[in-house]
Amino acid sequence: MTVLGPAAPRQLPYVAPLPLSAVRFDPASLLGSWQELNAAATIPHCLDNIRRTGVLENFSRLTEADPPGKFEGFWFADSDLYKTIEAIGWEMGRSGTGQWAEVLAEVADLLERVQEPDGYLNSNIQGTEGKERFGHLEQSHELYCAGHLLQAAVALHRGGGDTRILAIARRVADLIVNALGDELPLIDGHPEVETALVELYRETGDESYLRAAELQVERRGHQTFTGGFGPPYYQDHLPVREAVEATGHSVRQLYLAAGVTDLYLENGDESLLKAMEQLWDSAFGSKMYLTGGHGSRHRDEAYGDAYELPPDRAYAETCASIAALQWCWRMLLATGQARYAEEMERSLFNAIAASMASSGTAFFYSNPLQLRTGHDGSSEDAPSERLPWYDCACCPPNLARLLASLHGYAATSDASGLQLHLLSAGTFTADALTAVVESGYPWDGDVLVTVSGQGELAIRVPAWATGATLTVTGATVLVEPEPGAYLRVSCEDGATVRLSLPLTPRLIRADERVDAVRGCVAIARGPLVYCIEQADLPDGVLVEQLRLAASVPITEERVPDDLTPVRLRLSAIARPLETDLYAAYQPDLPAGTPITVTAIPYHAWANRGPGAMRVWLPLS
Amino acid sequence: MTVLGPAAPRQLPYVAPLPLSAVRFDPASLLGSWQELNAAATIPHCLDNIRRTGVLENFSRLTEADPPGKFEGFWFADSDLYKTIEAIGWEMGRSGTGQWAEVLAEVADLLERVQEPDGYLNSNIQGTEGKERFGHLEQSHELYCAGHLLQAAVALHRGGGDTRILAIARRVADLIVNALGDELPLIDGHPEVETALVELYRETGDESYLRAAELQVERRGHQTFTGGFGPPYYQDHLPVREAVEATGHSVRQLYLAAGVTDLYLENGDESLLKAMEQLWDSAFGSKMYLTGGHGSRHRDEAYGDAYELPPDRAYAETCASIAALQWCWRMLLATGQARYAEEMERSLFNAIAASMASSGTAFFYSNPLQLRTGHDGSSEDAPSERLPWYDCACCPPNLARLLASLHGYAATSDASGLQLHLLSAGTFTADALTAVVESGYPWDGDVLVTVSGQGELAIRVPAWATGATLTVTGATVLVEPEPGAYLRVSCEDGATVRLSLPLTPRLIRADERVDAVRGCVAIARGPLVYCIEQADLPDGVLVEQLRLAASVPITEERVPDDLTPVRLRLSAIARPLETDLYAAYQPDLPAGTPITVTAIPYHAWANRGPGAMRVWLPLS
Repeated sequence: MTVLGPAAPRQLPYVAPLPLSAVRFDPASLLGSWQELNAAATIPHCLDNIRRTGVLENFSRLTEADPPGKFEGFWFADSDLYKTIEAIGWEMGRSGTGQWAEVLAEVADLLERVQEPDGYLNSNIQGTEGKERFGHLEQSHELYCAGHLLQAAVALHRGGGDTRILAIARRVADLIVNALGDELPLIDGHPEVETALVELYRETGDESYLRAAELQVERRGHQTFTGGFGPPYYQDHLPVREAVEATGHSVRQLYLAAGVTDLYLENGDESLLKAMEQLWDSAFGSKMYLTGGHGSRHRDEAYGDAYELPPDRAYAETCASIAALQWCWRMLLATGQARYAEEMERSLFNAIAASMASSGTAFFYSNPLQLRTGHDGSSEDAPSERLPWYDCACCPPNLARLLASLHGYAATSDASGLQLHLLSAGTFTADALTAVVESGYPWDGDVLVTVSGQGELAIRVPAWATGATLTVTGATVLVEPEPGAYLRVSCEDGATVRLSLPLTPRLIRADERVDAVRGCVAIARGPLVYCIEQADLPDGVLVEQLRLAASVPITEERVPDDLTPVRLRLSAIARPLETDLYAAYQPDLPAGTPITVTAIPYHAWANRGPGAMRVWLPLS
Repeated sequence: MTVLGPAAPRQLPYVAPLPLSAVRFDPASLLGSWQELNAAATIPHCLDNIRRTGVLENFSRLTEADPPGKFEGFWFADSDLYKTIEAIGWEMGRSGTGQWAEVLAEVADLLERVQEPDGYLNSNIQGTEGKERFGHLEQSHELYCAGHLLQAAVALHRGGGDTRILAIARRVADLIVNALGDELPLIDGHPEVETALVELYRETGDESYLRAAELQVERRGHQTFTGGFGPPYYQDHLPVREAVEATGHSVRQLYLAAGVTDLYLENGDESLLKAMEQLWDSAFGSKMYLTGGHGSRHRDEAYGDAYELPPDRAYAETCASIAALQWCWRMLLATGQARYAEEMERSLFNAIAASMASSGTAFFYSNPLQLRTGHDGSSEDAPSERLPWYDCACCPPNLARLLASLHGYAATSDASGLQLHLLSAGTFTADALTAVVESGYPWDGDVLVTVSGQGELAIRVPAWATGATLTVTGATVLVEPEPGAYLRVSCEDGATVRLSLPLTPRLIRADERVDAVRGCVAIARGPLVYCIEQADLPDGVLVEQLRLAASVPITEERVPDDLTPVRLRLSAIARPLETDLYAAYQPDLPAGTPITVTAIPYHAWANRGPGAMRVWLPLS
């Protein structure tokens, strides 16, 4: 049975996604292990917390003639449920599990009973006295919640064969289509429904949903929203073809961009793609953290100015990195360019991976690149450790739906053959050929591909992989491996392709306009950014005292079967702490004491209790 | 006639403020010129805007049986009025002006008519259906607004001989005293009333106000406020004797600290002073900007972690620097220590002065130390230029009340004689002696004091003034000038004291834990921090391209009668802009092109249109 994955374009401008059913990550691979953890721990944890925080009760109370109690949680809490059942849909498609049939039936029952005859469905608006439907779209998140229902319905239909929730979602979508026919500038303060409507069009073939998505995109940017946050917060300051600087609330910006790109993938309007390419350059070229985090401001959860990228107050919301990955995937489908896959990998292995504890049941919402000694972690927006849940719980179920569908983002096909974008052990099948990948990536750099069938195989060579080498048998090399591009080989049945990526630890610097990390370097190995945690330092030495010499060798320490199987060891200097906040400039500072320090992958930080951490390390 | 100034302690633990009537700044001095500008432009501008934004109408509508319209503005808008009439009170004491008699009578009429029989007075609570007095003190600002009324009444009584507004304020204070007798943990989310109650006690001698202030202070820190911001935001997380790290909303923190210190100044409770000294070390030793700005986070307008001091996203609210100055003044009265006066001068000449345009009618609310090329200045919290007014208009009238009473913060006396803390041309009279100061400070470093009468004269030598020299006639030097301490001379009638402060431009560095300015220096001359603005750079060179050599000489350029009479000239390098946000580390970067640049005093920035600016400049 063919199971389509997230974003399944009908028009396919450049490369086509593989069906989920044509991809399987090796469960022992890092990406595969995250999917297993997601199924075993994160999805059940989300379901527990959705029930605990009253999200289901928000619906069930409305099935009574005189609803008891009141709506609980944030006004967009419906979306927590929708994202969780979307995760279940993808997970059913991945593993064939039927373990959540009962809860899905419960949800379908509730939604059917609460949905109004004309299709309206929103437990906050319906369950709160005085609230009027579509009366305050600037903040109400009604289309946002509807969009997540649509996406859940698409996932459940693709992955689980569901038709009940799809029918509910179509009634919601039909109502939106009708409402959008009005003269009202009916758009939502939080973009999300755009990509959902396109996906529902793809799943049903009903073109009214595509037209509704078009209207959402075209109506945006005309300063409909004049409230306290100001139009840029909502990306409502300029029409999408002119709004080419990443601006405002970062998750909204990135969901909108994914929706616009989805629209391009169906209507082929080149002016949309051009704007998205410019916007992408702004976001990924001047406003992205080294870890693939987006959004440098806690205030308004917003993008800052270009190069305003403080590691300590990085907001870098988990949802923003997920949205960025979803957008990059669509840009990749539209263009086939390696840079989009490169950034998917960056965010996946760093910002996104860091958001989840090794248990799969605790999460970061913001993903800073530095935690200071003495950090006040009492606020939910900047805790010192991952929390089991959040009052605003958008991130955990977003992570669940991404991980359950992650194999859908790994590879594509076109007329000539198969393209591998995310390197992982697993099996990837296009029409004409199947690639079985064996690799310990990202811990090891050797990627061995065995091909059955025949055709062209393209493998992305990461931009950092200078010196990558290739050996093939039964295949002809069309394009040699070059960093940041695809190697291409023409394969006979039984061909083997061995790509060896050099994983030598390396130092990275930032454009000097990133003032916040001036004079610092970061350590990386392959796609993984590393960090230094207080837990690995000797007593009496603070993370803040460390200075690196750029010329110092970095050695690897293997710790098999550990959360951090490859650690890095290097020499550093521990400088004495200073006493004056400001002092007369003097060129020579005390040298400090040599020590040896251990760096661990950033994504594994904060799994050993709270403590200081740095990604960017000052040079001595 | 003796006119007392702001903060007139009855117990006087260490040094006593001079009455306002015993001090006059030379109007040609920098501080004196700001006072003249304030009287001529800022106070009238505040009055115009208070009327324009409906602050007076909020009261006048309540004089009608069926109030028309609705309350306008933020719920604490009453305080805009109170701070403005406080400024008028001090200005009347300073200059003897009677020009605002009519508006004061109008205000007194309104307040008398709106005040309820039991003394309650708050145009938001009284003028908004469904709001209950003292029902939501976490956010309502009722005691905050009351505090500003009390402070206005004290200023109008001291400076203008007013008794009507004092009577209104006493009725408000009496109601608070009675309400505070309840079992309720009645404190305000925004500290302010503490210092106001102490000042009203000082002005009236009514000890019930002092006890009410004591209750406010003692009740704080018991986690009364559990709302969305969390207790630290309100400094309600720990009792004041334990809350020794500067935390939460910075203006609230600093007003509270001023109030606690005021309480110490009256009740002599050493445990309060000890806590304030620890808190002061936290705030001024690890959380203060070089300009004397406080509060590094836009989110929650809050102090960040220690050393979290980004120049670009500095919030550094004008009100916070004003509150910091008011707190330092009280610490100075309590201890006589130079460091408190040093920090008053820092904030006054830099953060506070920068908040006002040269016109006196436009203002910064936040005071960043860096504005990037391409900065999005569309948000009121981070505009590229000073704005004429703000929706949340706390800062402009706060500045007006500070400037009108500024001479009250300049000098003190004790049994032995006179102490000069803020260096400025002017006349300063203690019981036994008068000092006439002639100086072009801070543009020039010579301070010539001519003494009539006899006694001890102490002059603060700023901490940066290494190499200051002293010549006296008719006086005996008791303590030679040392940076960061008071020189002391015993004067005969007619003595002259000439202190020469070296104003050689100097480079400043920050503690390396201030990551955000690593590898940078700031330029200062005397008490003034300098900056480089885009307006002074040649075409085609961006502020972001500049690199300094620490060894380069800095020369002075005199521009008499200009907003910036002393500019600094120095050589720099303009580095080419980079193209990659992140790249492999390489030790050698392109050298760049030598250019000569001009630095101007930070406080004068953004008077030539919007443009990039930096205080902290990278070394090459």
